[in-house]
Amino acid sequence: MKALILAAGQGTRQKNNGATKPLIHLFGLSLIERVILTVKRSGIKEFQIVVGYNHEKIREHLGNGLKFGIEIDYIFNDEWKGDNGLSVLKARSFIHEPFILLMADHLFDDKILSELREITLEKDECVLCVDRNRHKYLDIEDATKVIIENGMIKDIGKQPNHYNGIDTGIFLCTPSIFDALEESVCNGNESLSGGIRVLAKHGKMKAFDIYDKYWIDIDNDNALKNAESLLIEQLKKNTDGPISKIFNRPISIRISKLLLKTGITPNQISLLTFIIGIFASLFFYVGEYLYLVVGGILVQVSSIIDGCDGEIARLKLEETKYGGWFDAVLDRYADALIIFGMVLGHWTLHNDITIWTIGFMALMGSFLNSYTAGKYDAMFRKNIKDVNRIRIGRDVRLFLIFIGALSNQILITLAIIAIITNFESIRRLIVLKHEYV
Amino acid sequence: MKALILAAGQGTRQKNNGATKPLIHLFGLSLIERVILTVKRSGIKEFQIVVGYNHEKIREHLGNGLKFGIEIDYIFNDEWKGDNGLSVLKARSFIHEPFILLMADHLFDDKILSELREITLEKDECVLCVDRNRHKYLDIEDATKVIIENGMIKDIGKQPNHYNGIDTGIFLCTPSIFDALEESVCNGNESLSGGIRVLAKHGKMKAFDIYDKYWIDIDNDNALKNAESLLIEQLKKNTDGPISKIFNRPISIRISKLLLKTGITPNQISLLTFIIGIFASLFFYVGEYLYLVVGGILVQVSSIIDGCDGEIARLKLEETKYGGWFDAVLDRYADALIIFGMVLGHWTLHNDITIWTIGFMALMGSFLNSYTAGKYDAMFRKNIKDVNRIRIGRDVRLFLIFIGALSNQILITLAIIAIITNFESIRRLIVLKHEYV
Repeated sequence: MKALILAAGQGTRQKNNGATKPLIHLFGLSLIERVILTVKRSGIKEFQIVVGYNHEKIREHLGNGLKFGIEIDYIFNDEWKGDNGLSVLKARSFIHEPFILLMADHLFDDKILSELREITLEKDECVLCVDRNRHKYLDIEDATKVIIENGMIKDIGKQPNHYNGIDTGIFLCTPSIFDALEESVCNGNESLSGGIRVLAKHGKMKAFDIYDKYWIDIDNDNALKNAESLLIEQLKKNTDGPISKIFNRPISIRISKLLLKTGITPNQISLLTFIIGIFASLFFYVGEYLYLVVGGILVQVSSIIDGCDGEIARLKLEETKYGGWFDAVLDRYADALIIFGMVLGHWTLHNDITIWTIGFMALMGSFLNSYTAGKYDAMFRKNIKDVNRIRIGRDVRLFLIFIGALSNQILITLAIIAIITNFESIRRLIVLKHEYV
Repeated sequence: MKALILAAGQGTRQKNNGATKPLIHLFGLSLIERVILTVKRSGIKEFQIVVGYNHEKIREHLGNGLKFGIEIDYIFNDEWKGDNGLSVLKARSFIHEPFILLMADHLFDDKILSELREITLEKDECVLCVDRNRHKYLDIEDATKVIIENGMIKDIGKQPNHYNGIDTGIFLCTPSIFDALEESVCNGNESLSGGIRVLAKHGKMKAFDIYDKYWIDIDNDNALKNAESLLIEQLKKNTDGPISKIFNRPISIRISKLLLKTGITPNQISLLTFIIGIFASLFFYVGEYLYLVVGGILVQVSSIIDGCDGEIARLKLEETKYGGWFDAVLDRYADALIIFGMVLGHWTLHNDITIWTIGFMALMGSFLNSYTAGKYDAMFRKNIKDVNRIRIGRDVRLFLIFIGALSNQILITLAIIAIITNFESIRRLIVLKHEYV
C-alpha cells in the first residue's frame, strides 16, 4: 500500500514566516520526517509526497527516502496556493489502488494506521479517522468537524451543527476520492473536505474511531508547543511502577530532552546505564559506609537513566525490538552484579554466611520478577481494574537498594528484596492462573 | 465462521466392524473430538455436524458442545449410505456464509486452519487444502488426487493423470459449493469430489498448499497406527537441545504414553517435576557423595519428566499459554534451588567460600539463558542455517549437573555452567543484534 502525504501548502498561520511548515523540527525530527517514520512503522514503504511551496527544500531534506529505508516520489502541485483538494487531485495519475492519505503537519500514534489498514473497504468507499473524544490539545475553533451516523460520515466542515467527531486528517482512500474531488471542484469547492462531502452524500465515506490514541494538527506555534507536551505524555507507560511514576520518570524525561541534542543512541544509553550499575556494584563490594553511599546513589542514578533509552527511542521514532531486549538483558546482568557486590562487600566486612543465602534468594526473586513481568504486564494493561494496583518492579528494587545503602542496612535490604520479589512472583503465578487467557 | 464436519458415513474399511469411525479413540480422544478441538484452536466456535450412521452415538458422545466450550448443531442425513456430497448438501439451508468443511476422520495441524482463514475469497470461490509433498504415511492408492495449475484446481479424482497434489479433505467454502454439488448430483455423481470438479471447471476452485504441516486421513486400521506415529513425531520440537533430542525426548514420550492413561493433567506434571527438583536440591544440600548421586539422578529424572507436561498437553489438544508459562516459572525456581542446594552442600562440607561466587555466577548465567531463550528460539526457527547449531539450554545444564554429581565434582560443574551459560547469553546478545528484526 502507498501513502500520499500533502506537503504543498504554505502554512501561513505559523509565526516563523517563510519557514516551510513540514520542515519545522520537533525533538530532532522535522514534522514530515515524523509522519514518514510513523507510517513506516505500519509497514508502508512507498510514499508519494505532493509538494508546492518551497518544494526544493523538502526534496533536499528528504531525498529519495533511502536514508529512511523507503521510496519517495514527489508530485509537484503548481496550484499550491489553492485549497488542499487540488493537491490530492495532482496524484490522480499515479495512484490506482487503495492508499493512505495524510497531512505533512499532522502527528499521530502509529497504532491508528495499523488498525486502519485492517479495514476491508467496499467498492469506492473511503475512510476518515475521527476523534470522538476531543483530546485536550485540540483547537476546537479551527478543527474540521464531522457528523457521524451509523459509522458513516454524513457531513463535514468547520461549522456543521451538532457535530459528533473531529477530522484527524488521516484517511484510507480508494481512487474514488479523485472523482469526488473533481465533482467538488466543479461545484466551486477545492478543499479536501469538499470531496469528502461528495463521498458522504453518496454514502461512501466511513468513519473510523481512533478512541484514545493521540493525534495533533500542528497548525500554529501554539500547536507546536502542544505537540511537544503530547509527545512527552506518551512517554509515560501505564506499566511504570510507583517509584518510576513519581520520581524517576519526571527526571528521566528532562535528561532525555538534553540527551536528544547530543545524538547519543538508545543502545548507547542502555550500555551507559549498565556501566553505572557495574560501578555501583564495585562500590558496594568495598563495603564500607562511605562507599555504600556512593554505590547507593549510583544505583538510583542508573535506575533513572534506565528510562532514557526508551524515551529517546520513542521521541525519535527509533524504537526497535532489539533495543528493548538489549536493555532488558543488560538490566538483568546489572541487577545480578549489584546484588553480588552487596553480598561480597558485606561478607568481606562481617564474615556472616547468612548474607550469601539471603543474596541468593534476592537474586532468584529479582530474576523471577523480571521473568514473569512480560506476561503480568500484558494482563495488567488488559484489566483496567488493576491499573491502581502497585507493581513491584525494578524501580522499586533499586530504590530499596538505594535506601538500604544510605542507611547502611545491606543484609536487611536484601532480605526485604528476597521476600517481596519471591512473594510477588508466586502471587503472579496464582493471579494469572485465573486471569491469563 | 462456522465449521461443517461430515460424520455420516459408515467407514466400512475399518476392521472394527460396526464401530462408529468418528468415535474411534486415539490417545484418549475420539477422532471427531480431535477434529473439533483442532478447529477450536483456530478460533471457530460454531459447528454443524452431519450425522447418519449411528447418529445417536455421536450425539450422545459430543452433546451440544458445551463441554468443549463450543456450540454443536446436528444435521441428519437420511441418505448416509450414499456418497459424501449428499452430506454436504443436507447443510444447504443452514449455511449462508463462507464456512470451513472438514471430514470427521481427517486429523491435521491446527496451523493449516489459521492460515486458511486468512485467505480472501473471490465471489463463489472455494479453497481446497492440498498436500504437494506426499507425506510419508500417505496411502497413495486410496488418496484423492488433484491437478493444480497456477494455484487453481483443474481436476480431482482417484486416478487423474499427472496429478501434482493430494486432497487433504480440508476446505474453505462459499455457499457456491451447494450449487456445484447439485449440478454434479444431477449428472449422477454424488461425491464431494464431483462438486469440486464442477467448481474447478468454472475456475472457482483454489488450491492452498499446506507445505510441511501434517494431516492424515484415517481410512483403515493401518492409518490409525500411522496417525499414532504421526502425532508422536509432532511432539519433537526443533528447539529441543542435544540432550533432549538424543536422550530425554525418546524416554519422555514413552512415559507420556503411560501417563495419558492416568488422567494426570499437564499442570500437575509441571508441579511433579518441580517437586522432584526440590528433592534433588535437598539431597545436594546434604553434600555427601551418596546423596549427591541420588540428587544427580533426581535432577536427570526431573529433566526427562519435564518434557511430559507439554507432550500430554499436545496429544490431548489441551495446550494453553498459561500451562507453558507455569512450567517455565517452576523450572526457573527449580533451577535456582538445585544450584543453591549444590552450593550450600559444598560449603557445609568444605567451607570454601569460592563456591558461593561460582554458584552466584552459575545462577546468573542459567537465568539469563532462560531469559534470552524465547527471542533466540524465534530466530532459530526462522534461520534454517542455524538448525544444526547446538542449543545450550536447560537439558544441557541439568545433564551437566547429573554428570557432575555422579563424579562428585560440584565446584567444577558449577564453574562450567557459569562459564558456558554466561558465554552463551552474551553470544546471543551479539548474534541477535545482527539477526533479530
